[in-house]
Amino acid sequence: MRPHHLDIFMSPGSVAVIGASRKTGKGNFNVIENMRDFGFKGKIYPVNPMTDEILGIKTHKDVKEIGKPIDLAIIATPREQVPRITQDCADLGIKGAIVVPQGFADADADGKALQDQLTRIAHERGIRILGPNTLGIVNAFSGFTSSFMSLAREKVPIGVICQSGIFFVGSSQFTGMMGKGIDVANGCDLDFADALDYFGDDDDIRVIFMHIEGMKQGKEFFDAARRVALKKPVIALKSARTRRGAVAASTHSGALVGNHEVFEAAFRQAGVISANDPQEVFDFTKALLNLSPMRGNRVGLVTFTGAGGIILIDTLQEYGLEVAELSPPAIKKIKDLSPAWMPIQNPLDIWPALMKHGMEYVYELALSEILKDSAVDAAICIAIAPELPENAHLDATGIIKKTAASFPDKPVVSWLYGPNQLSVSNMLEQGGQVVSLPTLPRAARTLAMLYGRGQFLQRAT
Amino acid sequence: MRPHHLDIFMSPGSVAVIGASRKTGKGNFNVIENMRDFGFKGKIYPVNPMTDEILGIKTHKDVKEIGKPIDLAIIATPREQVPRITQDCADLGIKGAIVVPQGFADADADGKALQDQLTRIAHERGIRILGPNTLGIVNAFSGFTSSFMSLAREKVPIGVICQSGIFFVGSSQFTGMMGKGIDVANGCDLDFADALDYFGDDDDIRVIFMHIEGMKQGKEFFDAARRVALKKPVIALKSARTRRGAVAASTHSGALVGNHEVFEAAFRQAGVISANDPQEVFDFTKALLNLSPMRGNRVGLVTFTGAGGIILIDTLQEYGLEVAELSPPAIKKIKDLSPAWMPIQNPLDIWPALMKHGMEYVYELALSEILKDSAVDAAICIAIAPELPENAHLDATGIIKKTAASFPDKPVVSWLYGPNQLSVSNMLEQGGQVVSLPTLPRAARTLAMLYGRGQFLQRAT
Repeated sequence: MRPHHLDIFMSPGSVAVIGASRKTGKGNFNVIENMRDFGFKGKIYPVNPMTDEILGIKTHKDVKEIGKPIDLAIIATPREQVPRITQDCADLGIKGAIVVPQGFADADADGKALQDQLTRIAHERGIRILGPNTLGIVNAFSGFTSSFMSLAREKVPIGVICQSGIFFVGSSQFTGMMGKGIDVANGCDLDFADALDYFGDDDDIRVIFMHIEGMKQGKEFFDAARRVALKKPVIALKSARTRRGAVAASTHSGALVGNHEVFEAAFRQAGVISANDPQEVFDFTKALLNLSPMRGNRVGLVTFTGAGGIILIDTLQEYGLEVAELSPPAIKKIKDLSPAWMPIQNPLDIWPALMKHGMEYVYELALSEILKDSAVDAAICIAIAPELPENAHLDATGIIKKTAASFPDKPVVSWLYGPNQLSVSNMLEQGGQVVSLPTLPRAARTLAMLYGRGQFLQRAT
Repeated sequence: MRPHHLDIFMSPGSVAVIGASRKTGKGNFNVIENMRDFGFKGKIYPVNPMTDEILGIKTHKDVKEIGKPIDLAIIATPREQVPRITQDCADLGIKGAIVVPQGFADADADGKALQDQLTRIAHERGIRILGPNTLGIVNAFSGFTSSFMSLAREKVPIGVICQSGIFFVGSSQFTGMMGKGIDVANGCDLDFADALDYFGDDDDIRVIFMHIEGMKQGKEFFDAARRVALKKPVIALKSARTRRGAVAASTHSGALVGNHEVFEAAFRQAGVISANDPQEVFDFTKALLNLSPMRGNRVGLVTFTGAGGIILIDTLQEYGLEVAELSPPAIKKIKDLSPAWMPIQNPLDIWPALMKHGMEYVYELALSEILKDSAVDAAICIAIAPELPENAHLDATGIIKKTAASFPDKPVVSWLYGPNQLSVSNMLEQGGQVVSLPTLPRAARTLAMLYGRGQFLQRAT
């Protein structure tokens, strides 16, 4: 990985915490306590004029008292003090500061003026600033966080760039998990382009998610996005899409929001995958971590239920995918196992065949015929999620995983129905051959995203 | 409840199973075994010429051998035999038959001719027919089912009308639970209008869900729908929306599909709640069971996170709801607890206030101010789903439930974020004061549905 000005933010050796609280324990949101719980092993310099020690660490009255250039400052004081403290940090030779408090461009005119001062200090003194109004950094790999909210440490290859700590605290509802996170928040200095370039070169990260309310540096951002999207998938959730949402955003992150359609067009151009809602972020992240892009838009379907097949056909059409026309040999193999009166086509309804010939034999035959068919670019498997072990004879997960593993270039997604969806889906996803979605429309939408990714990579090369 | 021709289908005292299988145990889908497991206590007459007994019950060689008029016949033979057997049932004085096998209008020309014969027999002989191609009936209240797939018995006030057994087997993915179900399937005789009228008069049922691929009797159906929608909410999931989906439906349920826009307009007219996908069915069912309709479209929001508020504002606007303009007294009470620089408006961001004054006090104040405000018709609560009991100080569920319970006429929905979403959401939903949705857009969409229901009821009265 090339050196980057965010390195000291992501993996500092020494950290000053200015405005460190004396209160510790649950409900006090103590940054130092949280940092240690998360696994930070570097040196910590608490700054608090009201006490001599915090959690057994000697405090300094003032940042200047530290007297040497440490890596990173976390500033958690009332807003008025922030510009002076940032100057002091720069004087000491500190290269980076995370400014936690609210009350800047997210608040009133005084706050906007304070934030402008921070921007000037960053430009004039060379100290880089993340924030204000930020939870800062999470890095499960190096074991560092500046968050005052407690977070799970998960070494997963997912990088999160956001303008709100909700994407750290609530990561299980957005990206599912998070290995590294950068909350650019009000973005007075460091912004999306910096964070994107960082994750673009970071071999720990395989999928990048961005939550964007608005930004100042559109050109830099889209240049970075295009560079990075060629290397790894970048998902964006743009909020503040409506007029009223945009007004609210200006009092949240102080963002210049921009027209939603302009963003959408630019995302497409740059190869950024645009998610319409948090649920798509979740589904897309999982799919991009585990499945290949689709080379074409033709989908083969294995189903136990005609009604499920029809819901899927509707949704595939609506998302611009095609129900593949299966080749005659594939059709014939299933026809031979089915009642003579049964019309066999894609979606392959294998219920009558498996009532007669058994789950294992029929499901494997159907799915492998679909996946080896050159007229098919991806498969959707509908199957039952039975109570286990009582109804193991209805469980197709083993066969689906094994068959999908033989065709790694063709993504396989599934929808399971029945009394045990969650745990059988988890079972099916173990090993990463298949991604299981909770509804058929979400399965179709996820494949449509993988088709878009495939198209972008083909156009770009 | 008024007498209805579906009564003997829903709660038969005696049942003939024609084509009853000798094979029992897992994987053999034995209807009689399944019926008993489900709790059926009535008399069963198995008909199978190849054996003398099934599960300890003496079999008959032929339905005629039963020699007396029992309530209901379940016919599970090869398709060619079905018309003759149905005639035999009518001769005996049996009033209803469930025809299970596939291979009728869902298959080839021969199958269509066989189904036409069934329709004629029903009209000429007065025997009512459900199916063919159906799992038939589920009634958790009376303890009867004709399903050959095993199903949970849940006495919940949800009635399901469908054209595929997937909505029985997979009910946890659609309506969540199911108390009674009628699979009209190919609908050669009994159809949607019959099933709707039945559930409309059924005091066990409070919410009705219909899955529709297509139907023959549009006029009868929409008349019934309007009658019933005035009494209780009716949700419809219309599939076979696209041209290709419609072609597939004609080989699934043999349905005349009709134009999607025509259905949508008729649903609106009749007060039927149209769900766009299975996920909406799930959310809507839960909300309609527990919450009041909305009287107006103005929503108050309590949030810990500006970013969450902005996502919500976008979605409310997109679904035709309004971000309520809170009255000055409500605003003032929160302003007094917040930093002076903080702009206070709806969404009420209470994070700074609760950092200072505690979760319990601030959340209760904010939510009750919103709910008692005459400028508000419903509330959305954003809160954290922390690990419990470790982080109980972050848990607002008790306060939200208690406050919502004091304002039963204004629906309260929530979105929880954090590491423990599922179990804290379940906790919050216990008691039925609040419905918790897994994403903010789904919370907004659910309120929009409750607003639509409120509008329909106001227009109709």
